[in-house]
Amino acid sequence: MSGGEGNEEYGRKRFERSASHFTDRITADGRDGRRVEAGRYRLVVSRACPWASRAVISRRLLGLEDALSMAIADPVQDDRSWRFTLDPDGRDPVLGIRFLKEAYDARESDYPGGVSVPAVVDVPTGKLVTNDYQRLTLDLATEWTALHRPGAPELYPQGRRDEIDAVMAEVYEDVNNGVYRAGFATEQKEYEEACTRVFRRLEALSERLAGQRYLVGETITEADIRLFTTLVRFDPVYHGHFKCNRWKLSEDPVLWAYARDLFQTPGFGDTVDFDHVKRHYYRVHTGINPTGIVPLGPDLSGWLTPHGRADLGGRPFGDGTPPGPVPAAEVVPPRGRA
Amino acid sequence: MSGGEGNEEYGRKRFERSASHFTDRITADGRDGRRVEAGRYRLVVSRACPWASRAVISRRLLGLEDALSMAIADPVQDDRSWRFTLDPDGRDPVLGIRFLKEAYDARESDYPGGVSVPAVVDVPTGKLVTNDYQRLTLDLATEWTALHRPGAPELYPQGRRDEIDAVMAEVYEDVNNGVYRAGFATEQKEYEEACTRVFRRLEALSERLAGQRYLVGETITEADIRLFTTLVRFDPVYHGHFKCNRWKLSEDPVLWAYARDLFQTPGFGDTVDFDHVKRHYYRVHTGINPTGIVPLGPDLSGWLTPHGRADLGGRPFGDGTPPGPVPAAEVVPPRGRA
Repeated sequence: MSGGEGNEEYGRKRFERSASHFTDRITADGRDGRRVEAGRYRLVVSRACPWASRAVISRRLLGLEDALSMAIADPVQDDRSWRFTLDPDGRDPVLGIRFLKEAYDARESDYPGGVSVPAVVDVPTGKLVTNDYQRLTLDLATEWTALHRPGAPELYPQGRRDEIDAVMAEVYEDVNNGVYRAGFATEQKEYEEACTRVFRRLEALSERLAGQRYLVGETITEADIRLFTTLVRFDPVYHGHFKCNRWKLSEDPVLWAYARDLFQTPGFGDTVDFDHVKRHYYRVHTGINPTGIVPLGPDLSGWLTPHGRADLGGRPFGDGTPPGPVPAAEVVPPRGRA
Repeated sequence: MSGGEGNEEYGRKRFERSASHFTDRITADGRDGRRVEAGRYRLVVSRACPWASRAVISRRLLGLEDALSMAIADPVQDDRSWRFTLDPDGRDPVLGIRFLKEAYDARESDYPGGVSVPAVVDVPTGKLVTNDYQRLTLDLATEWTALHRPGAPELYPQGRRDEIDAVMAEVYEDVNNGVYRAGFATEQKEYEEACTRVFRRLEALSERLAGQRYLVGETITEADIRLFTTLVRFDPVYHGHFKCNRWKLSEDPVLWAYARDLFQTPGFGDTVDFDHVKRHYYRVHTGINPTGIVPLGPDLSGWLTPHGRADLGGRPFGDGTPPGPVPAAEVVPPRGRA
């Protein structure tokens, strides 16, 4: 959930990620009040945000592009938070709003918390339904099945959920959120603890992935999506901006090959906009980058080099198939690509 | 000259390095008013500072340790600039002063400029003689010859000076000072121009060094010293802190091997204190690193790995020999070593 970690929360003693405030679930049977329905909801994301990018990838892999439309916010928030300044007249063409905050306010007036992505908005009412980034992708995988494309993979397979949950919990604590704890630390000791944990966990993951293509089982799962969204930002942002600099991702042969393998898999790399990623972090976090200058590096050409991971076996989509091409309106512009 | 680029000058439109204000030369014949004399002068340095480190390396290579004593300042300046807080009672034991500024003030009262290292101080009077970092090492190489150790190398050989000067001018502009221009840029365009020049020059130097062991001729010269002092700081500081992040030094096989070759040559790596280097930059430049947090990385163990450059031939010290061991009082503490 990008939004809560902005400058306003940076001065706190210790970085703590806020819990999502709106957690209504959209389910197949509507048991939580909301039912899965094609064309009813709009997913609002920033391509910069790792938490939102989970949903962008899941939506692609599952072929939900037609059923669940997507709004892409400007990667640089201002004091009104996420903006639709990339759209004509600065308005989301479906929701008709200029700021995501309007959907939050429609849901709850004077909501005091941060405005974060990913957010799912109910199109007919314009009200926010959920910003629960931890739950959202699991529901896309398990509740939206009626709307999945033919050949969609099982991203959260029944028999593997305990193992997936266990891996994801460690990855969340030490890696997904760990890089933020390192980057937003205000004291040396706090930074060192967080940074040490980031690399200790990455080393363990590197060992795990040395002999197997994916984190759990033989196929791509939610666990891979969640690790990928941090790894793809590691060298462009976390290494320098968040001082997670013991080594670059590209210096660890296993993790670097694993990340490239996913990047080159349809549904992963074709969702990544490095321009959005870099501009968001370097321009928004003025508490750690007061000049707002966005680095020219790193050289991204390596993302497209052979990874050799197919030799490990694995069946990326299990009994399914890769997703088709990216819808024309959602193709990442050249300046954002590796 | 570390000192002039501190926070006070950071807000300027474009980073420009101040010229040295005190430029008295100490020569063999005393033609500029000062004569080379063993034990008369004290070299004040910070091991953090690349400009001062040139003199630290030259002094070692030439065996001037006994003739020209050395004071090592605390790598972290406060508002009184360079301090002798590493010495007992916070005073330099030879000059008896607590701040380098006292030697500047003794030379010229109410001197309005910055206090910078390297500085040479006249011990009997306590007055600053010179802070001319561009001239100092050339004079150590060519005017202090009577006090050189047996087997000292020719660092600025007569027949090669034009070539050495030409290389050093390019290295100064684009690399030594270029990284500062990138790091202290306050506008995106200014940063991008500086950073682009840094890497364009490094690429040219990499090509030049692919087939020859040293920058000019077959032996180590002043040109190598001046390139080394920037390269050794590249991954620990300039890559992240100054956003020179197209690639790490360790990602360019030629420059990385060249830098390791020098690092492992007596007189180079044994003068480097990575702890001082990192703490200086990350704690002093609060304008670009407001938290003052010093990164844990990068992993420095690679500095001691084989470099293979001897295969290119070259005679590091020409007809001379390597310097002996570091004087016990000047050995870099373990926490500063690779």
